[in-house]
Amino acid sequence: MKIENNRIDELNHLELKAHRRKFDFVAEDIAALEDVMTKLAAFNVAIPSWALGTGGTRFGRFSGTGEPRSLEEKIEDVGIIHALNKSSNSISLHIPWDIPGDAANIKALASEHGLHFDAVNSNTFQDQKDQNLSYKFGSLHHVDKAVRKQAVEHNIEVIKYGDELGSKALSVWLADGSNFPGQLNFRHAFENTLESLREIYDALPADWKVWVEYKPYEPNFYSTTIGDWGQAYLLSTALGPKAQTLVDLGHHLQGANIEQIVSLLLMKDNLAGFHFNDSKYSDDDLTVGSINPYQLFLIFNELVEGMDSKGMDHATSIGWMIDASHNIKDPIEDLIQSVQAIKIAYSQALLVDKQALLTAQLNNDVVHAQEILQHAYRTDVRPLIAEASFRIGGALDPLKAYRSLGVRENLIRERGSRSVARGL
Amino acid sequence: MKIENNRIDELNHLELKAHRRKFDFVAEDIAALEDVMTKLAAFNVAIPSWALGTGGTRFGRFSGTGEPRSLEEKIEDVGIIHALNKSSNSISLHIPWDIPGDAANIKALASEHGLHFDAVNSNTFQDQKDQNLSYKFGSLHHVDKAVRKQAVEHNIEVIKYGDELGSKALSVWLADGSNFPGQLNFRHAFENTLESLREIYDALPADWKVWVEYKPYEPNFYSTTIGDWGQAYLLSTALGPKAQTLVDLGHHLQGANIEQIVSLLLMKDNLAGFHFNDSKYSDDDLTVGSINPYQLFLIFNELVEGMDSKGMDHATSIGWMIDASHNIKDPIEDLIQSVQAIKIAYSQALLVDKQALLTAQLNNDVVHAQEILQHAYRTDVRPLIAEASFRIGGALDPLKAYRSLGVRENLIRERGSRSVARGL
Amino acid sequence: MKIENNRIDELNHLELKAHRRKFDFVAEDIAALEDVMTKLAAFNVAIPSWALGTGGTRFGRFSGTGEPRSLEEKIEDVGIIHALNKSSNSISLHIPWDIPGDAANIKALASEHGLHFDAVNSNTFQDQKDQNLSYKFGSLHHVDKAVRKQAVEHNIEVIKYGDELGSKALSVWLADGSNFPGQLNFRHAFENTLESLREIYDALPADWKVWVEYKPYEPNFYSTTIGDWGQAYLLSTALGPKAQTLVDLGHHLQGANIEQIVSLLLMKDNLAGFHFNDSKYSDDDLTVGSINPYQLFLIFNELVEGMDSKGMDHATSIGWMIDASHNIKDPIEDLIQSVQAIKIAYSQALLVDKQALLTAQLNNDVVHAQEILQHAYRTDVRPLIAEASFRIGGALDPLKAYRSLGVRENLIRERGSRSVARGL
Amino acid sequence: MKIENNRIDELNHLELKAHRRKFDFVAEDIAALEDVMTKLAAFNVAIPSWALGTGGTRFGRFSGTGEPRSLEEKIEDVGIIHALNKSSNSISLHIPWDIPGDAANIKALASEHGLHFDAVNSNTFQDQKDQNLSYKFGSLHHVDKAVRKQAVEHNIEVIKYGDELGSKALSVWLADGSNFPGQLNFRHAFENTLESLREIYDALPADWKVWVEYKPYEPNFYSTTIGDWGQAYLLSTALGPKAQTLVDLGHHLQGANIEQIVSLLLMKDNLAGFHFNDSKYSDDDLTVGSINPYQLFLIFNELVEGMDSKGMDHATSIGWMIDASHNIKDPIEDLIQSVQAIKIAYSQALLVDKQALLTAQLNNDVVHAQEILQHAYRTDVRPLIAEASFRIGGALDPLKAYRSLGVRENLIRERGSRSVARGL
Repeated sequence: MKIENNRIDELNHLELKAHRRKFDFVAEDIAALEDVMTKLAAFNVAIPSWALGTGGTRFGRFSGTGEPRSLEEKIEDVGIIHALNKSSNSISLHIPWDIPGDAANIKALASEHGLHFDAVNSNTFQDQKDQNLSYKFGSLHHVDKAVRKQAVEHNIEVIKYGDELGSKALSVWLADGSNFPGQLNFRHAFENTLESLREIYDALPADWKVWVEYKPYEPNFYSTTIGDWGQAYLLSTALGPKAQTLVDLGHHLQGANIEQIVSLLLMKDNLAGFHFNDSKYSDDDLTVGSINPYQLFLIFNELVEGMDSKGMDHATSIGWMIDASHNIKDPIEDLIQSVQAIKIAYSQALLVDKQALLTAQLNNDVVHAQEILQHAYRTDVRPLIAEASFRIGGALDPLKAYRSLGVRENLIRERGSRSVARGL
Repeated sequence: MKIENNRIDELNHLELKAHRRKFDFVAEDIAALEDVMTKLAAFNVAIPSWALGTGGTRFGRFSGTGEPRSLEEKIEDVGIIHALNKSSNSISLHIPWDIPGDAANIKALASEHGLHFDAVNSNTFQDQKDQNLSYKFGSLHHVDKAVRKQAVEHNIEVIKYGDELGSKALSVWLADGSNFPGQLNFRHAFENTLESLREIYDALPADWKVWVEYKPYEPNFYSTTIGDWGQAYLLSTALGPKAQTLVDLGHHLQGANIEQIVSLLLMKDNLAGFHFNDSKYSDDDLTVGSINPYQLFLIFNELVEGMDSKGMDHATSIGWMIDASHNIKDPIEDLIQSVQAIKIAYSQALLVDKQALLTAQLNNDVVHAQEILQHAYRTDVRPLIAEASFRIGGALDPLKAYRSLGVRENLIRERGSRSVARGL
Repeated sequence: MKIENNRIDELNHLELKAHRRKFDFVAEDIAALEDVMTKLAAFNVAIPSWALGTGGTRFGRFSGTGEPRSLEEKIEDVGIIHALNKSSNSISLHIPWDIPGDAANIKALASEHGLHFDAVNSNTFQDQKDQNLSYKFGSLHHVDKAVRKQAVEHNIEVIKYGDELGSKALSVWLADGSNFPGQLNFRHAFENTLESLREIYDALPADWKVWVEYKPYEPNFYSTTIGDWGQAYLLSTALGPKAQTLVDLGHHLQGANIEQIVSLLLMKDNLAGFHFNDSKYSDDDLTVGSINPYQLFLIFNELVEGMDSKGMDHATSIGWMIDASHNIKDPIEDLIQSVQAIKIAYSQALLVDKQALLTAQLNNDVVHAQEILQHAYRTDVRPLIAEASFRIGGALDPLKAYRSLGVRENLIRERGSRSVARGL
Repeated sequence: MKIENNRIDELNHLELKAHRRKFDFVAEDIAALEDVMTKLAAFNVAIPSWALGTGGTRFGRFSGTGEPRSLEEKIEDVGIIHALNKSSNSISLHIPWDIPGDAANIKALASEHGLHFDAVNSNTFQDQKDQNLSYKFGSLHHVDKAVRKQAVEHNIEVIKYGDELGSKALSVWLADGSNFPGQLNFRHAFENTLESLREIYDALPADWKVWVEYKPYEPNFYSTTIGDWGQAYLLSTALGPKAQTLVDLGHHLQGANIEQIVSLLLMKDNLAGFHFNDSKYSDDDLTVGSINPYQLFLIFNELVEGMDSKGMDHATSIGWMIDASHNIKDPIEDLIQSVQAIKIAYSQALLVDKQALLTAQLNNDVVHAQEILQHAYRTDVRPLIAEASFRIGGALDPLKAYRSLGVRENLIRERGSRSVARGL
C-alpha cells in the first residue's frame, strides 16, 4: 500500500482553515519564524525496522494485525509514515531480523518511498537457529575468545549489509552483563569488550561510525558490562574518533539527569545520537513523550544549545531514532505519535530565548530562567509542526489522516490479520 | 529419575565428621537448640512448577538441558529437590501450563515423592491458543464484561483442578494495568476487579483461600490495577476472611521497606504468604538471598516475631513459595540455593534474642538493638540447617550432593538435551 | 506593605490588548468557557506560613532578604500574593512557629487582606526550647506513653489555636520512624500511633477534620511509621469519618503512580487534600510544576474526574496547599509560580473531553485516549488563567506585576535585608 | 579522658576463653591465616572530625551529650576509638569547623593518641560568618569568577592547614548544582569547575593528592555539577596524576552497581578512596553495614581483587574513611560499629577463594561462583577481628568495652551534657 499525495491534499484541505487560524496566532510571536520552519522541515527521525510489529514483555505478546511480513513490507510501512509526516525518511535495520536478500532492489524500493538507511543494528543478545556458540553468558565480553570472535564477525557482517544499503553507522547494544555477584570479573569483562570493539572498529569503512550504547540493567540484572555513559565514554574514546556514545532515554537509573549527560557528551564531541522512548519505572519502551514530555523538552533544549555552540547541523550531525516497544498500540500509530512528540519538543526548544536565558543564568535569576524555559514549553507549537509538514507535502494531522485513510484496514486486507513481524 | 536414600547416606557419611565439628560449635551457644531444630525440620518451601524450566527475558531465552517435558517430570524434579533438602514437600501448579490429565494418578505420583500440592495459579496474563477473547487490555479489570467473565471462569476452572489435587488456595496475580495515561479509568478498573474477584471468591470451596498478589509495574508500565499492598488489602478485605494479600519480594518500588509491610499485614491478619526471589533493580526474579540477604533476614525477623505474637505456626500458617526466573542457572540448582537461603534467613531469625531486643527497643537503645539483630545474622547457621536436613534423611549439603550424584546428566540422558519446559 | 488595586489596574492596562488577543484565540475552542472561568475564579490554594521564608537543606541555609519577622508580616506576604493572583485566600499556620498572640487581631488582619485560615499544622518532629520530653525517638508512636501524651497535648493545643482563628482542620505530619533495623517494633509503633491519634481525634470540634499525612523516608531513613497511603488509610479509617489521608506529592517512592493513589482515595472518600511541590529524586520540595508538569496535570485529571463523579465542589471539598522549600528563590516569587502552575494543570484538566475519553477507554483506543489528554495538556491555557484573575481584580501576570511593583525592594526597606522568618 | 591499656586488658581477660574457642574454630579452616591476621592488623579507617557530634536532618537535630567542644576533644574521642579497636589511627579534619590554632601542639596531641591526620576537607557548601561572597549558587562552578576565586583560595588555605598537620590529600566535595531546569548551563558549569580545580591542583604540594567526590543530588535537587563517577573521572583525569575519584557509598542513584564502579576506577588507576556509610533510600548517611552488609562485602571483594591485581597495599594505597551522620546514636558507638562492619566485610573478602572464583567465572559456573562468595560471606569472621585487635592491644569487643568502661558517662562529666560539636 502506498498513500497517494492527492489523498493527503484532500484531507489537508478540510483542515486548512482551522489550521491557518492557529498557525497565524502562534507565528505572530515568533521572531525567527522562517528559521524555525526551515529547521522543522529538515528534521527527520529514523524508524527502526523492529518497531513495525507489536512488541511484547517477558510475560507474553499480544500480536496486532496486518503486520509486515518481510523487509519489503516494513519499508512500505515506513513509507506510509513518511508520506504522512514527512519526517521519517530513513529506516534502521536490525540484523538478522532483516537481512536484505538483494540489496540493490531493497535500496531502490526504499528510494521509491523517499527513504534511505540509517544505522544498522547487530544482535548478539539472542541465539540464532544455526549459531555455533551461545550468547547465554555474553558476547563481546565473553570469557571465551571463540564466542567473542563469533560476535565480532557477526558485527562485521552487519557492517557489510549496511554498507551495501548505504548506511553509515553501526549501532552496538550489548546485553552482556551478569545476574549474580561473583559471576563476572568486571575488569576482565570490560577489557574483553574493548578488545572486541577494537576488532569491529578496525573493520569500519572510512566514512562509518560505531555507536556504543549503554544500559544499566536488563536483560542482565546484577550488572551490565556497558552500564552507564561513563563506561560507554571510556570505551568509545579508547576506540577512536569514529566511535561515540549512543543515548537511549530508557537506559538510565531512576532520578538520572539525562539532559546533563547529553550536554556533557556533546561538550566532549562524544554524542552519537538518540534512541527515543519514555518510561515510568525502568526501560519501559513506551511512546516517547507519553510519560514525561517536559523531560523530553529539556533534553532538546540541551541539544539545541549544545549543537549551536559547536555549529553543528541539528538534522544531520547526530542520529535520531525511535526505539520503543509497541505492545498495545498499532505500531504505525505509535510511531506517528512518537515523531510528533519529538518534533513538539524540538520546536519548543527552538523557541527558547537563548540570550535571555543566558542572561538570567549569569544573574542567577532562577525564577526568570524557569519562566523562559516554561514559556517556550507552554506555547502550543502544534500549528508550527503542522505547517512545516504541510509545506513539504505531508498531512496537517498525520494521525488523523492515517485513520481517515483506513490504512490499517488496507494492510490487514493485504497481509491478513494474523501476520506477525519478525523482531522482539 | 529418583534419588535413593542410600546414595544420600553415602555422601553424608563423607561429610559427617566435619559437619559434626561445625554443628557442635554453633549449637553450644543456642539455648533453645531443640526448638530451633524442630522448627527447621518442619519448615518447607513450595516449588512452582514453572520454575523447573529455564526462564527468559523479553530479549530472549537461553534454554537449559534435560528440562521436564511434562507435569510428571516436573513432579520428578521437585521430588529430587525434596529428597536432597527435605524442605520442598509441595508443588504449586500453574494452569494452563500444567493441566493434570488424570488427577488421581498425578496425586499418587506426587505422594510417592513425598509431595503434595500447594496453591494453584491462574493465568490471565497471556492469551491461550483457542481462547475466545483476548487479555491484551486486561482480564478481571477489563472494560468488557465478557472478558471479565471469561477470566473469572478460568479461575474457577483452576480451583476445580486444584481441588482434585488437594490444593487449598488459589493464587491470583493479575497483569492488568495500563501503559499510558488516559488508557484506564482507575476507579472503574478497581471496581471491575473487585466484582470479578467476588465471583471467584464465591466459587471457593469451604476450606480454601484466595491469595491476592500486588505488583507496581510490568508487564504494564504506567499503572497496575493491583499495584501495591494497600490496593491488595482493600480488595481482599472487601472479599472476606478467605482472601488475603500475597507478598512477592520483587513486587515493590525501590526503597520500599518490605519487612514493615509484612509486619503490618500480619498485624491485620491479612498476610497470605510469600513469593521469594531477589532483585537489584526491579522485578528481576533472581535467586532469593543472592543480592540482599540481610533484607531477607529482616523479613523473617518480622515474620517470626509477628507469627509468635499471634501464636501462629511458622510452617503452616502462611504460604511459602519460591517465584524466580532461572535464566542462566540450572533451575534445580537455583531452587536448591533458594531453599537454603530461605532457611538460613529463617534460622537467623529464630536465633534473635527477642526479649533482649524488646528491652532495647523500649530503652531506645538503637545501637544495642542493631547488635542483637546482627549477632543473629552474623552467626554461621549453615550447620544447623545441615543437621536439620540430615536428621530427617536429607543431604548435609544438598547442592554438592546434586552435583556428586550427576543428577542433571541423568536427566539429560533421560529427556534429551533439547527438552523445554512449558512456562515463561 | 499592601498592594493597591489601582497599581494592578495600571499594570493590567499595559498588557490588556495582547492578553485579549490570546484569550480570544484560546476561548474560541472551549465549549464550556464560562464554566471553566467560574471554576478558575473560585479556585484557591492555601499558603503555608513557613513557606514565606527561605528554606534550607541539612547542609545549610542561604537566607533571603526582607523576610517576614512575625506572623503579622507573614499574613502581609500572603496578602500580597493574593492581591496579585486572587487565588491564595488562605494561610496555613504551623505551631509553634506561628503562635497567634491575639487571635481576634490576627483574624481581623487576615480579613483585611481577604484571607482566612486553612488547616493548622502541629510540630512533633523537633524539640522546642522548654519541652519536657524529647521527640528524638518519635512522638505519637513513641514507646514511652509520657512522650505520646505530650505530643497528643501539643496537637490538642494546636486545635485550640486553630479554632480561635476559624480553621477547620488539623494537619498531622509525623517524622516518627526508625533509622536502623531492630530499632522499632513496627506493630507496636503503629498501634501506639493509632492510640495517640484517637485521643487527638476525640478532641476535634464537631466541624473539624484531621488530615493524616504519609511519607516513606526522611527524616527517618529506615522506616517511617506512617510510610505510605495504605498506612494512612488504615489509620484514618480506624479513627472515623473526620479523618482522611493527605497527599504530599514529594512523599512517594520513585516510580509511584500518584494519580492512581489519588483516584482510589477519592473513590474511598478518604482524600483530605494536597501538599503541592515537585521533585527530581526524593522529597526535594521544589516548586510544583517545575520538574514534571505533565504528572501534575494527570493528578488534576483524576481529581476533576473523581470529584465530578461524586458531585464534589472542586474548590472547597478538599484542601489545596503548597508545601515547598524555597531554598534559592524569592519565596513570594516561588509561591506565585507555584499557584500559577497548579492553576495551569487544573485548567488543562478542565479542558479534557471526559465523554470522548470514556468512549476511548471503553473501546481500548489507547492511542486516542492519549491524544485526548495531550490535546488538553498541549493547549496554552495561560490566557484563561490571566482572564480569570483579571476579572476578579488580580494581575494578568502576577509574577511580572510583583517585579514591576518592586515588592521585594519595599519589603527589604521595611524589614531590613537580614530579617529571617521562623521555620525550617 | 584517655583509656588506659590495663583497663582493656582486664576486660579482654574476661572474654578470652570464650574468644579463644571461637577463634580456634574459625581459624582451622583458613589456609592463609597469618596473612589475613597481618592484613587485618594493618587496616585502619580514618575518622572524620565532624562525625564525633550528633548529626541532623533538615528537620532538626537532637543533640547528644558530652560532645567534644574543641578540636582537642575531637582528637581525644578518636583516641578513645583507636584505643579500643586499634583500627582508627587517623582523623580527617574539616575546615573551617576545625581550624587548628597551633599545628605543632595539635600534631603532638594526636601523636600521643597514636593518631595522624588523613585528608583535609574544604567547605564551600555553606556561607561562613565573615565571608565576602555567598555560595548560594555554587562555588567552584559559579558563574561569577570572583566567587570561584574565593572558593579556590579557601581550598588552598585548607591545603596549607593540612600541610602543617602532615595530611597528604585534599578532599573536595562540592554542593554545586542547580535546583531548577534552566538555572544552569551544564557545560559552562563543568568548565568553570575544571578551571577552578586546576588552580587548586596547581597549589598542591608535591606529595599531595586531590580527591574529587561525586554525588547525584542534594543539597541541589535538579542537577549536581559533579554528579556521577563519569564526571569525576573526566575532571580528575583532566587535572593530572595527583587527582583521583572519591567514592561515597551514599552518593549513587538507587540500583547503581557500586562495586562495578569501584572495579573500573581501580582498573583506570583513578580510585582515590572511600567514604563509608549505608542507606535505604538516598544519601541517608546511616552506619555502614547496617542496611546492606552484603553490598559492603561485594565492594570489598572488588577492592581486594583489584588491588591485588595491581600489587597495591590494601591498607595504604587508597583512603578509607567513615562519612556518616549519627543522628540518633552515640557518635562514638556508631563509629565503633562502623569500623567493625568495615573490618568484617574486609575479612570476608580476604577469605574469598580467588583461584576457585576465577575458575568458576571462566567456566560460567554461576552457581558455584555464588557459593564461593557466599561461603566467605557466611563465615562468622568476628573472632578474626577480635584476635587481630587483641594482638595489638585493642579490645576483643570494642563496643562492649566502651560501655563497660563508662566512657560516655565520663565524657559527660568532663564536658557537660549540653556540649555541642561543631559541624553539620
